Amino acid sequence: MRKMKLIIAYDGTDFSGFQRQTGLRTIQGTLEETLSRILDEDIVVEGSGRTDAGVHALGQVCHFVTSKPVPVERFPYILRHTLPRDLIVVASEEVAMDFHARKSACWKTYRYQVETLPVPRLHMRRFAYHYPVHELNLNAMIKAAEYLVGTHDFTSFCSAKTEVENKIRTIYDIKVTEEDNFRYVEVTGSGFLYNMVRIIVGTLHEVGKGKIKVENIPSILYACDRQTAGSTFPPEGLHLVEVGYEERN
Amino acid sequence: MRKMKLIIAYDGTDFSGFQRQTGLRTIQGTLEETLSRILDEDIVVEGSGRTDAGVHALGQVCHFVTSKPVPVERFPYILRHTLPRDLIVVASEEVAMDFHARKSACWKTYRYQVETLPVPRLHMRRFAYHYPVHELNLNAMIKAAEYLVGTHDFTSFCSAKTEVENKIRTIYDIKVTEEDNFRYVEVTGSGFLYNMVRIIVGTLHEVGKGKIKVENIPSILYACDRQTAGSTFPPEGLHLVEVGYEERN
Repeated sequence: MRKMKLIIAYDGTDFSGFQRQTGLRTIQGTLEETLSRILDEDIVVEGSGRTDAGVHALGQVCHFVTSKPVPVERFPYILRHTLPRDLIVVASEEVAMDFHARKSACWKTYRYQVETLPVPRLHMRRFAYHYPVHELNLNAMIKAAEYLVGTHDFTSFCSAKTEVENKIRTIYDIKVTEEDNFRYVEVTGSGFLYNMVRIIVGTLHEVGKGKIKVENIPSILYACDRQTAGSTFPPEGLHLVEVGYEERN
Repeated sequence: MRKMKLIIAYDGTDFSGFQRQTGLRTIQGTLEETLSRILDEDIVVEGSGRTDAGVHALGQVCHFVTSKPVPVERFPYILRHTLPRDLIVVASEEVAMDFHARKSACWKTYRYQVETLPVPRLHMRRFAYHYPVHELNLNAMIKAAEYLVGTHDFTSFCSAKTEVENKIRTIYDIKVTEEDNFRYVEVTGSGFLYNMVRIIVGTLHEVGKGKIKVENIPSILYACDRQTAGSTFPPEGLHLVEVGYEERN
């Protein structure tokens, strides 16, 4: 048996999220069906984590085990013509059997894209949230983001539906930037709770608009109450950019 | 009654072309349904011309007549939230009653985008044809394009299914360029026959690959036989960029 690691990219718009669900078009389901057909054996694909319906990826990582002697570097080419157009295999690599896409992951980077032009551009319509608000205080957003960096209980920044017990996570870095009519919020962390990045982005925008004060961020964290943070930004702006497998120091 | 001119952009991927067809999702049909609902009267939309299934537009022009006193500049905003995400009204203008989106048009520019990277980029997957052929002779393509500029019978460069009698058209300009892993073929002309731009682009690529010689282009034009020209490139690379209403000299 051999273990294959794939780096995949997808346009999440027309998928019901990453995780396999009977009767729904999902990334995991599509990969498993396609690989099982090509390799003529039952393939189980494990991802580094789920992404929600409508969320995209540039560098999602997954693995699977196969008994077949297909050269690993062939997978991107074989899959180019068998996967649907909104799901691409960017790279493939044979890995040790103890590698696990989710359990071995040390950190992830997500980027949220907001388009700020009055009229949205067509080819970014699926990949950015169109939110043409001007007079946004970028410096306040950057300062608020600094309060979120570090190890905190992020209960206020995850969906109230989250069932995970331990809501302590580490954020290593948040970058808030503007360039060419886009605003980007890039968050790197040890792991993320349900809707966490989208709530962070929504909250930072409310800081930018002056609806939430920068110096209130610590008390929002402390409250451990979803009601205290800002709104959840929509999925179309969110991209899983990279999954890291080396420890950060 | 007032006449409104709209400049529209669309992602043609999920449309069955511009022209209204019962039971199919088309650009004309979607605009007519939406405008009729908003304005509460039967609206007929006329475009500058049809685009095929899968072909995109950045600057398609259309017009319609309404009895309602909606300020013309409101249309892009009103339609932003009522049209589907893959159809955008870029600009609106009230025009004289004798303006006609198709009959008044003097020229059109189409751009064809070919992506040349080995692995296609996700967000351009709907908007470019992925054709990673290297060793293409760009100068030969540019020289071949020069033979096509001018007034010619373009029978060899249109689908054999074309029913139009007069196949004489004028091409004002063809630009073949490469930039940032894309190759662009931009064609400006008085009007275009069915599949004409896609066959021009296919033929120029066969010249680039050395399968058709530059100096054979005049005899292909002269043959008036579709079999003599190159293949029809797929629709996803084609964009209607601009429609002009002033005479070219």
